[in-house]
Amino acid sequence: MKILDTGKPSLHVFEMLESEVRSYCRSFPTIFTRAKGCTLWDAAGEAYLDFFAGAGALNYGHNNDDIKKKLIEYIQQDGVTHSLDMATAAKESFLEQFQRIILQPRGLSYKIQFPGPTGANSVESALKLARKVTGRSTIIGFTNAFHGMTLGALSVTGNKFKRKGAGVPLHHTVSMPYDGYMSDQVNTIEYMRNYIDDSGSGVSLPAAIIVETIQGEGGINVASIEWLRSLEMLCKEKGILLIVDDVQMGCGRTGTFFSFEAAGIKPDIVCLSKSIGGYGLPMALTLIAPELDIWEPGEHNGTFRGNNLAFVTAAEALKYWKTNQFSDEIFAKGELLKSGLQDMVASYPHLKGQVRGRGLMQGIAFETQGLAEKICERAFSKGLIMETSGTDSEVAKIMPPLIITESELKNGLELLYTSIKEIAAESYSGEWRRNNDR
Amino acid sequence: MKILDTGKPSLHVFEMLESEVRSYCRSFPTIFTRAKGCTLWDAAGEAYLDFFAGAGALNYGHNNDDIKKKLIEYIQQDGVTHSLDMATAAKESFLEQFQRIILQPRGLSYKIQFPGPTGANSVESALKLARKVTGRSTIIGFTNAFHGMTLGALSVTGNKFKRKGAGVPLHHTVSMPYDGYMSDQVNTIEYMRNYIDDSGSGVSLPAAIIVETIQGEGGINVASIEWLRSLEMLCKEKGILLIVDDVQMGCGRTGTFFSFEAAGIKPDIVCLSKSIGGYGLPMALTLIAPELDIWEPGEHNGTFRGNNLAFVTAAEALKYWKTNQFSDEIFAKGELLKSGLQDMVASYPHLKGQVRGRGLMQGIAFETQGLAEKICERAFSKGLIMETSGTDSEVAKIMPPLIITESELKNGLELLYTSIKEIAAESYSGEWRRNNDR
Amino acid sequence: MKILDTGKPSLHVFEMLESEVRSYCRSFPTIFTRAKGCTLWDAAGEAYLDFFAGAGALNYGHNNDDIKKKLIEYIQQDGVTHSLDMATAAKESFLEQFQRIILQPRGLSYKIQFPGPTGANSVESALKLARKVTGRSTIIGFTNAFHGMTLGALSVTGNKFKRKGAGVPLHHTVSMPYDGYMSDQVNTIEYMRNYIDDSGSGVSLPAAIIVETIQGEGGINVASIEWLRSLEMLCKEKGILLIVDDVQMGCGRTGTFFSFEAAGIKPDIVCLSKSIGGYGLPMALTLIAPELDIWEPGEHNGTFRGNNLAFVTAAEALKYWKTNQFSDEIFAKGELLKSGLQDMVASYPHLKGQVRGRGLMQGIAFETQGLAEKICERAFSKGLIMETSGTDSEVAKIMPPLIITESELKNGLELLYTSIKEIAAESYSGEWRRNNDR
Amino acid sequence: MKILDTGKPSLHVFEMLESEVRSYCRSFPTIFTRAKGCTLWDAAGEAYLDFFAGAGALNYGHNNDDIKKKLIEYIQQDGVTHSLDMATAAKESFLEQFQRIILQPRGLSYKIQFPGPTGANSVESALKLARKVTGRSTIIGFTNAFHGMTLGALSVTGNKFKRKGAGVPLHHTVSMPYDGYMSDQVNTIEYMRNYIDDSGSGVSLPAAIIVETIQGEGGINVASIEWLRSLEMLCKEKGILLIVDDVQMGCGRTGTFFSFEAAGIKPDIVCLSKSIGGYGLPMALTLIAPELDIWEPGEHNGTFRGNNLAFVTAAEALKYWKTNQFSDEIFAKGELLKSGLQDMVASYPHLKGQVRGRGLMQGIAFETQGLAEKICERAFSKGLIMETSGTDSEVAKIMPPLIITESELKNGLELLYTSIKEIAAESYSGEWRRNNDR
Repeated sequence: MKILDTGKPSLHVFEMLESEVRSYCRSFPTIFTRAKGCTLWDAAGEAYLDFFAGAGALNYGHNNDDIKKKLIEYIQQDGVTHSLDMATAAKESFLEQFQRIILQPRGLSYKIQFPGPTGANSVESALKLARKVTGRSTIIGFTNAFHGMTLGALSVTGNKFKRKGAGVPLHHTVSMPYDGYMSDQVNTIEYMRNYIDDSGSGVSLPAAIIVETIQGEGGINVASIEWLRSLEMLCKEKGILLIVDDVQMGCGRTGTFFSFEAAGIKPDIVCLSKSIGGYGLPMALTLIAPELDIWEPGEHNGTFRGNNLAFVTAAEALKYWKTNQFSDEIFAKGELLKSGLQDMVASYPHLKGQVRGRGLMQGIAFETQGLAEKICERAFSKGLIMETSGTDSEVAKIMPPLIITESELKNGLELLYTSIKEIAAESYSGEWRRNNDR
Repeated sequence: MKILDTGKPSLHVFEMLESEVRSYCRSFPTIFTRAKGCTLWDAAGEAYLDFFAGAGALNYGHNNDDIKKKLIEYIQQDGVTHSLDMATAAKESFLEQFQRIILQPRGLSYKIQFPGPTGANSVESALKLARKVTGRSTIIGFTNAFHGMTLGALSVTGNKFKRKGAGVPLHHTVSMPYDGYMSDQVNTIEYMRNYIDDSGSGVSLPAAIIVETIQGEGGINVASIEWLRSLEMLCKEKGILLIVDDVQMGCGRTGTFFSFEAAGIKPDIVCLSKSIGGYGLPMALTLIAPELDIWEPGEHNGTFRGNNLAFVTAAEALKYWKTNQFSDEIFAKGELLKSGLQDMVASYPHLKGQVRGRGLMQGIAFETQGLAEKICERAFSKGLIMETSGTDSEVAKIMPPLIITESELKNGLELLYTSIKEIAAESYSGEWRRNNDR
Repeated sequence: MKILDTGKPSLHVFEMLESEVRSYCRSFPTIFTRAKGCTLWDAAGEAYLDFFAGAGALNYGHNNDDIKKKLIEYIQQDGVTHSLDMATAAKESFLEQFQRIILQPRGLSYKIQFPGPTGANSVESALKLARKVTGRSTIIGFTNAFHGMTLGALSVTGNKFKRKGAGVPLHHTVSMPYDGYMSDQVNTIEYMRNYIDDSGSGVSLPAAIIVETIQGEGGINVASIEWLRSLEMLCKEKGILLIVDDVQMGCGRTGTFFSFEAAGIKPDIVCLSKSIGGYGLPMALTLIAPELDIWEPGEHNGTFRGNNLAFVTAAEALKYWKTNQFSDEIFAKGELLKSGLQDMVASYPHLKGQVRGRGLMQGIAFETQGLAEKICERAFSKGLIMETSGTDSEVAKIMPPLIITESELKNGLELLYTSIKEIAAESYSGEWRRNNDR
Repeated sequence: MKILDTGKPSLHVFEMLESEVRSYCRSFPTIFTRAKGCTLWDAAGEAYLDFFAGAGALNYGHNNDDIKKKLIEYIQQDGVTHSLDMATAAKESFLEQFQRIILQPRGLSYKIQFPGPTGANSVESALKLARKVTGRSTIIGFTNAFHGMTLGALSVTGNKFKRKGAGVPLHHTVSMPYDGYMSDQVNTIEYMRNYIDDSGSGVSLPAAIIVETIQGEGGINVASIEWLRSLEMLCKEKGILLIVDDVQMGCGRTGTFFSFEAAGIKPDIVCLSKSIGGYGLPMALTLIAPELDIWEPGEHNGTFRGNNLAFVTAAEALKYWKTNQFSDEIFAKGELLKSGLQDMVASYPHLKGQVRGRGLMQGIAFETQGLAEKICERAFSKGLIMETSGTDSEVAKIMPPLIITESELKNGLELLYTSIKEIAAESYSGEWRRNNDR
């Protein structure tokens, strides 16, 4: 590795050898070497505060010490590392604790499937099972949904750029309007009900509806509690399975372990991944209402279903959920974050920012194209890692590790505030607009 | 965990909490706790010799000491664990070594994509890219192929049970006869050429043909060198991309790092996973001929593309390939294995076994349904882990870690021999047949 | 043929030999032998007034004398009957007159395709061409649309019963809400525009939008002039082709030759069939904006494109359109019909009827399920042929031949009135409800 | 109409007004006005002998006098012309006679569906019904098959140019090798059986197999009797429905009424169209084994199912089949045709012609591209209408009306012989080759 005259590590190796598909290394053009909690360090020794948290995979922070200790112990004693879906002690321990710490106290009853170690694997298994159970083929997804990049998961994803990447038409799905998509006057659940009821609508009774309670990638669109309840009711009435994709919003991101707890609904199938592994290791779960667990043995499989290092770290991470304390802290930090963002928006009204989100998944949506990207770029230059979301990258997104301290959060907000202030000034002076016009 | 009166650990927790989809824990009904090299131990202290190697994900053995050392060091120093596709020192090091140790010496030039940490992710990305590059949609797959369980990968998989699991018709693909599928008289490449050339065949010019050089899951069907060369020639002539799925056969399984080296072909795209991570950790690569690397940034993405622990172990594992020694040893052990299996087949002609495969991917195909399963079950009872393959589970498959010692290999063959002998005796005496008839 | 004791001809032959798929012979259970103008006679000599007009194929009445004369002359002189798509004098004459009488005076410029002799053939050719011209695959159809029963036409049809008949999922189409589908508050064009503009909507830019200006089969849903204009504007803005399926509403049904004339729009492609043949003979046209006529010779073909008897009768029928008189008469009769229907609805408010439609395509929609069917059944018993429409058969539909006289129209309305009166009485007395409950 | 200086009628009107999709009027560039038996006359008074017979729709000749008489009578007495699927006397009469003259004597039992008046409509209805009956979606079609141009029919058609015209990928079908497709050594039925039996073949159990006994459009490929019988046996064994598309080969084209009579098979579903109407009028039938007739009323419909003029002419045409005489004559003329063609082929061995077909569906396949087209063009210049077939137009096809006299047949063969002789001479002298090279 070489440090350039700019003081930044050279990305030469990546430019030469890695595919053009790489993306985040373009937004954050340095080489990271070490990480702890909410901080990353690059090869030049520079520290960065992490408001991105591995896109939601690092809710417990980087290299969390308690978890790390268990992980190293397990490796040192030659615990089984890779086991396909054989039974191992590490998996047994995870199963028991997930049942005892997460499901039981919430009155939830699910069979647990290990569908392969990515969110897309979980979504693919959920769609398959829903079709098998109902004997129907259509799945309803929502505008601006994101569920993954494999062909099945893509077929319920809204983003047209990503869909086009499939190279083939995506079938057996219908895209319905998410909460708020059609203006406030229109109840999109009633609209959907119409399509489902009307024998002339051209949309056949779906096997399932798959939904995110907040659309993170889609621009931090928040479904209301009432909407989620109506959705569950519609599904129950019509015999449609309700799948909640909690890959990004689950594991505490919104304050509760499952993001749907606030709505009091009980989905038929739940997809979990990202932070379920606790330490950023690949792992995913599909939770299945027991009566729907009609899989044949091996009907969905995969080589890395048994990533035991992740089982060990996942089990340890669950300890955060033994009491309400962790949850309460997230809510409190969420409030702090919200008021911070609202202050920024209020300070620079000509930027027309709109605060969105809840818990530690929040952001500011901007009307002017390119503004959010500009702000994130500036923030990075100040040592703050954060990303945009929305199909037109119109939202500056804040999703720090959940274990972030109040003072770290404030520091980060300060950096963000300064970035916005600078961009606002440039924008106001017309400088940024001119740049943007080029 | 409880040890039952039988001396086996109780699987109660798995039966209560895990989905019915679980499969290998049914073939190997115990709870594994520890593993080293070619041996697994269960909770009751019982040792098992591993002729399965994590379905090809453990080519360097369980918890390989050299690799383990690097892994623990990296974790201890808080190296970045999860990085999406940001640049990290661990990734840079892997890229450099893969280039220097694997690609350069073989005269291969590929851009490297990290498509998500499973073989199915790699296949999905390969199909997408092939369609994008050519602007065509059809992909040709082969009878008895296995490429994964996500919707795109399933669409080129032959197994009807697995395809049915999709719950929807699988489109944009055509299943062509693999080498030897139509009797020895028929050159299946010529047959395919006919379909491609003939403007009335109903099969449009495909974007790509995806092939395994040996079909592991499909029953250890081996494509001949000539067939692979003809296939490459056909692709070149017609402007069809050739994708080799080397997920199971790559990383040395057949003796060379890539399974297609023996044929001297240069695929346009190569899928790698399973043992590429070196230690059984989830990781996958898609290798892309440089002129085809027309991905837009982020056009295919995923949360666990940056599993840095796997980059560390993968880089260390590549050291096995610095000289020819490892390769030579695999060939030698492959010969030993072949002669051992041929002896068994010859000893019990009434079982009508047929030895298949090469390198350390070999097996015996049996005509009588259920025989291979019976043998594997018996072997397990003697402390040998091995699985069947083929759509009707008609093949008893042997794929030990590549680092297996000659004496371990002989021990395992001894256990297998005894198992076959017993089953043969029962079969001969009619006992097994009667059991089977029930 | 046998006349039963009931005085009705026996349908025995049909019950024995014809497929169960037959339908209208169940609604009108007699055997018809002779027809003239607006009257049909059955084998028992009974006369029936025709308010159905062959579902719109008999706009000029049964066996129209002027047309009949030309037809017989042509047959007698051995004019070419069947010519595939060879040039014939009969076709040339039709082409010239269609250009001179229909297209030119309306300022319309279209190339004329003979796509096979059914409306579905015309729709299939329109969809193919739209996809070829744009290189895109998605077609937007509307809720409650009906475009035909072949696989392509079905894919843009809303009726779920008919769609299910396909036996396979119907792809590459999206069903959008027709004018008024989502309550009066929602502008469904804006809704569609949203889906098309938003890069995260999951609906890709369509090749075409196919629309009926009035949905006849779908329940006589009338699109407003403003809505049609907005639709055309949306299409123009986005480079989407606008296809008007004028198979049932064209040829004067709404008063003008093309049903879209009132809106002043100029579709890119127009589908015509049913009454274009003039005499009830199978014929269809696809009208194509000249710059879109990029068909290769023979790219869409069919054996019966050259039904010359229909060309002869079609050319003769065009004479009705040489002046405005015919059109004016249709409007006048349409007004008469409207006020007649409104009177009926007003007379029996408890039936909750709603008058729909314009020109000579009108009907009464009823809220109570089964009511419209009951009324049509009663009307038939009184010598009036009329059918229901709507996916739940909730609309009693009136679409007489356009050449109907005022006195015939009044007679028919009288019969309908009596039928409704009787049903209303039975309904009121509860009799019908009880019957219905069984 | 204008007669040009060349003595040919001007095609100006067609060039100006008709779509570019028109094709036969390009091969036969004149305007036809009158026709009788096997002769067509153009506007310039020129006579043409018809070896094309409306692509098989004019088996009983142009304007057949007996049929014409009945047709005119029916029209004159105002018989019902258009009746949707209401019961009419004309339909009843056709049903009775089809049952008595065609089905009963052949020991065949079928329910009769009127699916709309084209072959494609019949194929679409057959595919729908097969999927409904079996609950399966895949249909097997054959290489070089032609079944029609609507989306369902296209999906089982082999021709890639026509398939591409669909503008969307065609799904739910598999293209299998027709008899003889893979060289004489390979039994393509066994190949198919393999795909169907093998649980790893990637091809699921189909709902139906659709086959032409001779592929007319595909190049006059003749399936052997044994092959057809094996096909029926395979279908019976596996519970697959056998659909024979007899649209072109039925109604006596090969000598028997149904083309499959020679093989003694009994398909589950039969598609008939083209000459079933007797006079070249649009009509089609779908014959359904009674136990499969599970259609719901109206589940497949269409406006022109009740083309009564065609019922009248169809019923009259059936009289040809009351005795064996007509059939015997076709066989005799087929022999005469065969020996005539074989003589031609033998006379010009350097043209490498191959005689194909049976009955009055025969032709000569040429190896050199463009030769067949050249011959047909020359034949037309001498007053003989004939067309090519095969996806590369490599076959000069002879399919005169079945009522052709021996002397007409000889005249036609003479004209063909002279055409071939001339082309052969030019070809030999290199003249044609040079022309072709330009």
